[in-house]
Amino acid sequence: MSDGLFGPIFARGEAAAEVTDVAWLQAMLDAEAALAKACADSELIPRAAADAIAVACRAELYDIDAIGVAAAQSLTPVVPLVEALRREVGTDHAEHVHFGATSQDVIDTAAMLVAKRALRPLVADVLAVRAALAMLADEHRLTPLIGRTLLQQAEPTTFGLKAASWFSGVADAAYELVIADESGLLAAQLGGPVGTLAAFGDKAFDVAEAFANHLELDDPFISWHTARNRPADLAAAIGVLSGALSKVALDVALMSQNEIGELREASGPGRGGSSAMPHKRNPVASVAILAIGKRIPNLVATVLGAMAQEHERGAGSWQAEWEPLSQLLALSGAQLAWARELVEGLEVDVERMSDNLEAAVLAIGGDPGEIDVGSAPALVERLLSDALEED
Amino acid sequence: MSDGLFGPIFARGEAAAEVTDVAWLQAMLDAEAALAKACADSELIPRAAADAIAVACRAELYDIDAIGVAAAQSLTPVVPLVEALRREVGTDHAEHVHFGATSQDVIDTAAMLVAKRALRPLVADVLAVRAALAMLADEHRLTPLIGRTLLQQAEPTTFGLKAASWFSGVADAAYELVIADESGLLAAQLGGPVGTLAAFGDKAFDVAEAFANHLELDDPFISWHTARNRPADLAAAIGVLSGALSKVALDVALMSQNEIGELREASGPGRGGSSAMPHKRNPVASVAILAIGKRIPNLVATVLGAMAQEHERGAGSWQAEWEPLSQLLALSGAQLAWARELVEGLEVDVERMSDNLEAAVLAIGGDPGEIDVGSAPALVERLLSDALEED
Amino acid sequence: MSDGLFGPIFARGEAAAEVTDVAWLQAMLDAEAALAKACADSELIPRAAADAIAVACRAELYDIDAIGVAAAQSLTPVVPLVEALRREVGTDHAEHVHFGATSQDVIDTAAMLVAKRALRPLVADVLAVRAALAMLADEHRLTPLIGRTLLQQAEPTTFGLKAASWFSGVADAAYELVIADESGLLAAQLGGPVGTLAAFGDKAFDVAEAFANHLELDDPFISWHTARNRPADLAAAIGVLSGALSKVALDVALMSQNEIGELREASGPGRGGSSAMPHKRNPVASVAILAIGKRIPNLVATVLGAMAQEHERGAGSWQAEWEPLSQLLALSGAQLAWARELVEGLEVDVERMSDNLEAAVLAIGGDPGEIDVGSAPALVERLLSDALEED
Amino acid sequence: MSDGLFGPIFARGEAAAEVTDVAWLQAMLDAEAALAKACADSELIPRAAADAIAVACRAELYDIDAIGVAAAQSLTPVVPLVEALRREVGTDHAEHVHFGATSQDVIDTAAMLVAKRALRPLVADVLAVRAALAMLADEHRLTPLIGRTLLQQAEPTTFGLKAASWFSGVADAAYELVIADESGLLAAQLGGPVGTLAAFGDKAFDVAEAFANHLELDDPFISWHTARNRPADLAAAIGVLSGALSKVALDVALMSQNEIGELREASGPGRGGSSAMPHKRNPVASVAILAIGKRIPNLVATVLGAMAQEHERGAGSWQAEWEPLSQLLALSGAQLAWARELVEGLEVDVERMSDNLEAAVLAIGGDPGEIDVGSAPALVERLLSDALEED
Repeated sequence: MSDGLFGPIFARGEAAAEVTDVAWLQAMLDAEAALAKACADSELIPRAAADAIAVACRAELYDIDAIGVAAAQSLTPVVPLVEALRREVGTDHAEHVHFGATSQDVIDTAAMLVAKRALRPLVADVLAVRAALAMLADEHRLTPLIGRTLLQQAEPTTFGLKAASWFSGVADAAYELVIADESGLLAAQLGGPVGTLAAFGDKAFDVAEAFANHLELDDPFISWHTARNRPADLAAAIGVLSGALSKVALDVALMSQNEIGELREASGPGRGGSSAMPHKRNPVASVAILAIGKRIPNLVATVLGAMAQEHERGAGSWQAEWEPLSQLLALSGAQLAWARELVEGLEVDVERMSDNLEAAVLAIGGDPGEIDVGSAPALVERLLSDALEED
Repeated sequence: MSDGLFGPIFARGEAAAEVTDVAWLQAMLDAEAALAKACADSELIPRAAADAIAVACRAELYDIDAIGVAAAQSLTPVVPLVEALRREVGTDHAEHVHFGATSQDVIDTAAMLVAKRALRPLVADVLAVRAALAMLADEHRLTPLIGRTLLQQAEPTTFGLKAASWFSGVADAAYELVIADESGLLAAQLGGPVGTLAAFGDKAFDVAEAFANHLELDDPFISWHTARNRPADLAAAIGVLSGALSKVALDVALMSQNEIGELREASGPGRGGSSAMPHKRNPVASVAILAIGKRIPNLVATVLGAMAQEHERGAGSWQAEWEPLSQLLALSGAQLAWARELVEGLEVDVERMSDNLEAAVLAIGGDPGEIDVGSAPALVERLLSDALEED
Repeated sequence: MSDGLFGPIFARGEAAAEVTDVAWLQAMLDAEAALAKACADSELIPRAAADAIAVACRAELYDIDAIGVAAAQSLTPVVPLVEALRREVGTDHAEHVHFGATSQDVIDTAAMLVAKRALRPLVADVLAVRAALAMLADEHRLTPLIGRTLLQQAEPTTFGLKAASWFSGVADAAYELVIADESGLLAAQLGGPVGTLAAFGDKAFDVAEAFANHLELDDPFISWHTARNRPADLAAAIGVLSGALSKVALDVALMSQNEIGELREASGPGRGGSSAMPHKRNPVASVAILAIGKRIPNLVATVLGAMAQEHERGAGSWQAEWEPLSQLLALSGAQLAWARELVEGLEVDVERMSDNLEAAVLAIGGDPGEIDVGSAPALVERLLSDALEED
Repeated sequence: MSDGLFGPIFARGEAAAEVTDVAWLQAMLDAEAALAKACADSELIPRAAADAIAVACRAELYDIDAIGVAAAQSLTPVVPLVEALRREVGTDHAEHVHFGATSQDVIDTAAMLVAKRALRPLVADVLAVRAALAMLADEHRLTPLIGRTLLQQAEPTTFGLKAASWFSGVADAAYELVIADESGLLAAQLGGPVGTLAAFGDKAFDVAEAFANHLELDDPFISWHTARNRPADLAAAIGVLSGALSKVALDVALMSQNEIGELREASGPGRGGSSAMPHKRNPVASVAILAIGKRIPNLVATVLGAMAQEHERGAGSWQAEWEPLSQLLALSGAQLAWARELVEGLEVDVERMSDNLEAAVLAIGGDPGEIDVGSAPALVERLLSDALEED
């Protein structure tokens, strides 16, 4: 909704730029261009038409607002976009535009391209977060810390083990997204009006394969117009990652309480400030991650709940996916951008950890000189060495 | 997220214009101006300062993007906005800006102003929908129709009774929103950093009351910084209304199936068209309403789930409310704009209703000459006359 | 799901007993008995039949498991229940059982009776919570406390103002449930197969009114088979209350952290214990309230999302409401039972509050001798006197 | 909630029996027995103690209700269960019970055992559904059918392609659950109070590995007390599968409308009946699947939203998972049991398909003699042959 005012909070990082109107429009045009190329490859349309269409498939040539207004008539921006594209390529080639495709082919393919492009910065950030967490875990594998359960002091652990647990949660959750380019999650969509590829005759499989190849997307082998596993899997993966990141942020926010003081977010001019209380140093990255983390699960539920799509094209259920999917990508990107700032700049107060631990041990009549952190350091070492081997 | 491309679908109508960045910024500035006025009323700041602040409280004077970027540092746009406002009013009055308030006072108050303003077109549309449904019910109170249960033909009813049921659902659901201006749902927020109104001394209650009055919002008598009933009640009311509207749209979409053909949405040039199948007449308003209706319940869950806010200001939970609340207002506004188009233009095919009913009766060995619609017409009459009396 | 193992946690209190299988069955039988009485009142069936039916409408006469198994055939327990009831009353009266009604009439009416009965203990507990919070607020209106924003120490307030904010959130949220018996939220359902009351002829309105009166439910004036405002409003009210209670529990859990120590839940033998750490005193009531509070918003979303019901009886959407509604009542009841224990037994450590406040003020170079809690005491007094007046 | 009354609908099939109180209790006892064995393997406790503990780890020896009541004191059934188990094994072995573990080790491990056991019938049913869908697709790959988009007739396809799309959705969605036993999704939990395995000294890794092996669960290499990927991944997989099944059910329900009549669910005595309309044949399996499908996404959101767990044990977030996870398993099992009945008994009316298609083609001036189903048959063949190869 908000671009400039709340954008630097909720659309932080580079993923959000890949889900804008322009990005969507370009992705739709990329789909149209790839379709024309694939049809030319199979000699269903002239190569010259495909070339002309490719040249015309640049978002800056089109009036997004006008397309949007017209889109409301048919409930798909592809109808007016195809008209505009036909005008752009001229009467010679107009009939070859959008050959054999249906609106949903273009929008679903565009959605996958949008996802693929948004995942690039998102994955870069998640790998950076992963690396920073591994460093934290390694550096502090011996740093003693009081473990806390149900928000009460419990028994000693090390901060490295805590960071290793963060690492394992984030690394596992990120896996699906890191491999998305190779796993088949991101597939092209080409079926024609009801998925039969009818217009392509005996070239149907060739066209579908070439279409996917031109876009560097997977060939799904069957239209997924109303088999919505891909959007759902993508949403679910983002949902699990959001939970893993929120866990880190929650711990940081709790450990940054003045009365605990074991962690602090990086500071800077104006960072963490308050309009009324200039002395404050708020854990802004943690708070932003948590805020996003409270929104993502319900957007996942929307995408899952929208999987029950009618016949060969959903009547409401499909359309309900569009903006939530964009929002999930942008919010996840923002959450990771914040997480990277958080983890890379985290200040660890080893002394406060030690003081709090000592107080906790004394409070239950223990001996602060005999702190037993069990296998915490060994657990960290094994986990990190396994993770390094996997890479 | 999308402004131009999907906006005419999901941000249809006039409510969406009231939740833009500019609208939010203006609402924050309105809050600052009202605060200055209220402080001047109690002689806490000079009247001249209040006047100068009021003059400076126009959104067009400020760079939203710059404020947004700076907002990410403190996680609130109010910190940079107050700085900018102080620069605008000059050194003479700068110290009197934002007197005694905290960021959340300004954002929460702005949220209520945004809601109040978005509710105006939204309520106008809901009243129009209500009236159109009443007319449909009245006109067709005797029009026979086969009732359907579990998507199977059941027993006869009238289309008027069906429309009356739509009417009752929408009218009841709209009530909370229709009376929002008088019910106390929309209250100002003024508490200062931790809700004690400390800066206002013995003028605290006067300032709080005047602040609310200047904005035509309710005076809540206690800060609701972390007692989030208002956003939650607003979200819930939108959620119930969305369900009532979705029910209408679902019935229309089902009754518009070619094989049933009892209803048709209004047509027009390009309306309901398809990129591949020019012969189609898609129920676009119904589909749009259903799509929105699949998103709203989970946004309501986000707002409800965010009510558990920490101490005197939430750490993630509060911030999680902002965009979902805007989205709920915009989506609800769009749903109602679509609903108004849908209901006001609905074409009723009385003949197909009659044909389908006859076929249904014959199929179970009944006599199409002896259709019993029970008290359907009387139920419609009583309901409408009660509704008219209430008005 | 769980009766004995997790029940004392998640089905605490007395509300859960009103949503069991037996309670549902009795409520359905109460509906059948009331229907028979109402029909006899209008001389549609013999008074003797109504009397015989009333006698047979006791849950202990029926085999719930057998009814449940048969229910799966028709997807409604009413089909086998009516058969069993007919067998029970014998051939003389069998034909008068379930006169003119449809399954949904019985299930929806039963749902409202179940809600009405579950609300009794629930409302008793909420009023007790409200009273205990008012006492806390009054007692501690002058007790100084450091206010905290974004989980960081901010400025001074009083514990009484914090408790007053809890009070206002809970009291406002409870209102809809407290007045449910009079507000028309809880209405009978009687429409016959498609809502036309066809079987009752010109006695239709009389029967419907008498039916509602016999059950002390509201007469809705039109069947709400697929206008689901009532379940949705009930769910939403529970959702807002859950948020208000979760806010209290979150603050108590945070203030019970060893490092803060300002509050403690009541202790007792075994209360708050741990299997591995006998020294711990866990804030179990707070944790239980928070756990429930994380589940309720999504159950509300389910009920809201299920409002889009097809034609005259939903195909999946209606059935999706049943268990979530029971769960919402039971979970809300449990949350309130925990909240009552929490609030009535809460131990306030005024000394720790003072110590933490002093440390906070010193940390920012302030003077602990000059603590300004602003209008906190006056705000508490005004709020409580207003609340007393309303009662 | 409901056992007998609604259970045959919402707890259909065999999965539900694996999430009962008894099943949970037995799973917890299995964890205790495996822990004792693992400790004995490493000579941390006497073998005789392990044997005695194993003998005592039978659910029927314990009073579930008493354990549940006591569980509310500590918010975990493990505290009273360990006490009861100690009494059962007698003073000789009591000290060796629960050696080195924490409550969460036992509950989380039990949850994974419960999941593993519930997945067995669930996976059997999903494989049967998959096979039945493949048969349907194969048998009808040439059966012409009008494709429908936005609930409007569009262009011809074949019923086989439609069934193949159902197949692809269900098969892909089921994959994670089918391989759950080998994928590492189902892991043991053993960390001790704060995850350090402190009590096991230098045998820690051996004990953890043996513990997992005895239970045929994965060894996670680090405690996942507050890294909740496993419950979240499990919930998400169930969520995606629910969407895929709901899609099938929605199509069947729509195609079973009297006016369309292309499909019918299997009939039987009483199946699909109505209390008021004996002539009806309701699509009960479809309706049940859809009802469940409206509940599951929001339960998934609850599990995802609960991932933000505090420090070394969540305060509300962890406890919020328990019942929703059980419910997801039971509901998914029921959905699959219904789906199996639905798909295995589905009656296809080839003639009505042909009639509807002809009418659709005629309506737009087409020639019913020249129906072009494009590559539909070839798509089915390729998809099925690929699927067979994978097996």
